[in-house]
Formats: sequence, C-alpha cells, structure tokens
Amino acid sequence: MKIVIMGCGRVGSRLAGLLDIEGHSVTILDTDAYSFRRLPAEFGGTALVGDGMDDETLKKAGIEEADAFIALTQGDNRNVMAAQIARNIFKVPRVLCRIYDPLRRELFNSLGIESFSPTTIFAQMLKEKLEAGEEAK
Amino acid sequence: MKIVIMGCGRVGSRLAGLLDIEGHSVTILDTDAYSFRRLPAEFGGTALVGDGMDDETLKKAGIEEADAFIALTQGDNRNVMAAQIARNIFKVPRVLCRIYDPLRRELFNSLGIESFSPTTIFAQMLKEKLEAGEEAK
Repeated sequence: MKIVIMGCGRVGSRLAGLLDIEGHSVTILDTDAYSFRRLPAEFGGTALVGDGMDDETLKKAGIEEADAFIALTQGDNRNVMAAQIARNIFKVPRVLCRIYDPLRRELFNSLGIESFSPTTIFAQMLKEKLEAGEEAK
Repeated sequence: MKIVIMGCGRVGSRLAGLLDIEGHSVTILDTDAYSFRRLPAEFGGTALVGDGMDDETLKKAGIEEADAFIALTQGDNRNVMAAQIARNIFKVPRVLCRIYDPLRRELFNSLGIESFSPTTIFAQMLKEKLEAGEEAK
C-alpha cells in the first residue's frame, strides 16, 4: 500500500516505522523538520516538510496515488480538515483521523471519515484491565 | 473496588466516570482544581485537590484501603514515582501507570508496575485497522 501520514509525533513516527518495516510505501509529512528525529534510523520511506492541509504539499507527498491517508497532528481541527481534503478532493480510499475530543469524534464519523479517540480507547482499556483483574481473584 | 486515580485529564476523568457508573468507589486527585470540570456532572465519587506524590494526600485519598491506583498525569516521571509509592509504601494490590515513552515503559514493567504506553497501543491499532481493510478488498 502507498500510505501518507500527516504528523510525525510519537504515534505518527512509530506507525510510519511499523508500516515501512512491513514493506508499505510510506510518506510522512510534518511542518517541523525537527520532528523527523523520531523516525527509526532504518526508516526507508519519505519524510517531507510541509503542511498536510495544503493541496500542493499533498500532491508532492503522492496523495493522488495513495491507498490510505492518516491524520495524526496534535490538532483535532487540522486532522479533520486534512482528512476531508484527502477524502473529498483526492478520493483516497482509506482515511483515518485521530480526534482527541470524543464528542467531535461522533460528529466526524458521520462525515464518512474513520476517526479514533485515544481518550475513549485508553479509558475503556484501563477499565477492562481493572475489572479483569478483579474477576481473576 | 476502591480506586484512586491521579490526574483528572481527558483519560482520567473519563475513566473515573466509567468506574463510578459501575458502582466502584472512586477518588480522583489533581493538583489543579479546574481540571475537575471534565468530570461528568453525575459523578458520585470524590475529587480531591492535591499531589499524588505526597504521602499525606494519598492517605486523604484513602490509599491505605485502595484496591487499585492508577497514575494518569501528563508526566511519565510523576506517574512512575507515584505508582512506586502506591505499590511499595502503601502495598496497593493493583497499580497501573501510563507511560508515553515506550523505552521507559519496558524498564518500569520490570519493576512490577503495570504500565501502558498509549503511543504503542495506538500505533499498533492503526496498523491493524489499515491492514484489515486491505485484506477485505
């Protein structure tokens, strides 16, 4: 798969590394070149400085041939905006988007974008861990 | 169960609400009283202003009778410090700890504290989502 990732923070850089190891063609975007220090040394994909909300940058990243786009910046609004561009303008088949705010997430899922709230996922996981431990007693 | 949570951010407040609804006795600590605005309006547990690295605060929070302690502040070091106090001084049976840095997490798991890195969990989950979609084609 050809995959474009926006945001080279902890999760973006880790995901880029995981996908690259498995042989996917990965391009990762960030507005801050310094953030690429997080990529694994053996990363074989492309790291591109630029803004994923900008059409020209997205074209340079190969969005027109991409099978998937994943928005992982720190800003929910930026993620949603870029995800909508990828989905509606460039017709990328899979568009995933991180949204911290659980209320917004519900809204954006209704717009046809697969969005995930780490808040919700993590709180639920901790609750299940705790309760699983209790049952085991 | 009696559960003490340190850190009333997005995940802490959500977890407190989930556990409270299910009938657990929840005390949530934060150094910033304003953070308690995130708790659900119907939250029936205790919200206590104070630092979870301080013995007296932990005693006030009922740490001596707690079945579980969960460290969810934004600081990995604070989370680990408090988790170690809960585990080693107050002998809390279950101690869970969020650690953003995956390298540190490996170290702290070896100290007998159940720690979780949302970074690792979320990157792995996204990778699996992407690959599951590919197989379905």
